[in-house]
Amino acid sequence: MPGAVLDFWFDFASTYSYPAAMRIGTLAEQAHVRVRFRPFLLGPIFKLQGWTTSPFNLYPAKGRHMWRDLERLCAELGLPFQRPATFPQNSLLAARVALAGLDHGWGEAFCCAVFRAQFGNGRTIDDPATIAAVLSGLALDAAPALAAAQSDAIKARLREQTEEAQRLGLFGAPSFTTADKELFWGNDRLEPALRWAKGVS
Amino acid sequence: MPGAVLDFWFDFASTYSYPAAMRIGTLAEQAHVRVRFRPFLLGPIFKLQGWTTSPFNLYPAKGRHMWRDLERLCAELGLPFQRPATFPQNSLLAARVALAGLDHGWGEAFCCAVFRAQFGNGRTIDDPATIAAVLSGLALDAAPALAAAQSDAIKARLREQTEEAQRLGLFGAPSFTTADKELFWGNDRLEPALRWAKGVS
Repeated sequence: MPGAVLDFWFDFASTYSYPAAMRIGTLAEQAHVRVRFRPFLLGPIFKLQGWTTSPFNLYPAKGRHMWRDLERLCAELGLPFQRPATFPQNSLLAARVALAGLDHGWGEAFCCAVFRAQFGNGRTIDDPATIAAVLSGLALDAAPALAAAQSDAIKARLREQTEEAQRLGLFGAPSFTTADKELFWGNDRLEPALRWAKGVS
Repeated sequence: MPGAVLDFWFDFASTYSYPAAMRIGTLAEQAHVRVRFRPFLLGPIFKLQGWTTSPFNLYPAKGRHMWRDLERLCAELGLPFQRPATFPQNSLLAARVALAGLDHGWGEAFCCAVFRAQFGNGRTIDDPATIAAVLSGLALDAAPALAAAQSDAIKARLREQTEEAQRLGLFGAPSFTTADKELFWGNDRLEPALRWAKGVS
């Protein structure tokens, strides 16, 4: 029996992907659903919608609410929160390292640690030094992980994941998709997505 | 003691305002929070952001997800759902009638009935005949209600409410604001908004 599976699509630059990443492990375990972490890049998808940056920057009222809402949400969830100086950050390096890590069993812990560094501690994740520090914090050897992230195979995989996200109709992050291609958008949809995944397994 | 108060801001054209309107009565009662229904017009606020129609129409991938998500949400809540032929509809008449009704004790029932007619039964709410039918369904006399809705006082009130919404930083609907001007956006934020309102009372 294959069991229920849910794909968790996120971009490291996405604010609401932070609480989703921190919540999904426990909730999926309770729901007996296997989660696949699927980092991708929102940039190319935003460009197709005519956006050159995050809609939270394009529409200041929306952005003001988002930061305040995220702060409230983190307080409620008991998650650290610190707004980084720049938003959105370039998530390319983190996404590539994550893909390398997901092949070797440390990907999910790395993803959560990157989100926590960025939105919990206000760190700059497009700086290789931050990524190296995150890896060291997980007792991982930074140099080979960073090297693996720059391999042609990983670069191609990230492009493919982003194209797959687009084909599935994704337009934002976090998003969740099920085996029958049902799409759920937003941290608020994590619970219904898990219920749906369970229903079609 | 004045007790906790929450302002519920909505536009009748707004899809997610439908489940919010249908849920808020019971949830507010359970939370011992008094709710004030505040119909307003999103159109002028969207225009300020450079949008000539709903973002769900401007961004088709977002729109496809919204309709499917609303359908799933209504199924989960046990609410009828039928997508109207046109979206967004002109909500001016319904908003004016609602303001007239809120002065006379039948406003909240009218608001819920208009949302149910539009998104539960796929009706055209910018047709005065639909509004008259909704009023009759509530055992109300349609003619005086429609006449009151066209009074200068009501027209001015709707303009004022829309300007107040803008001053409070609203950029979408449904939204909720508390006595200390905390802003919550979206049907998903109804519960946290009620908790906040309770905390500051």
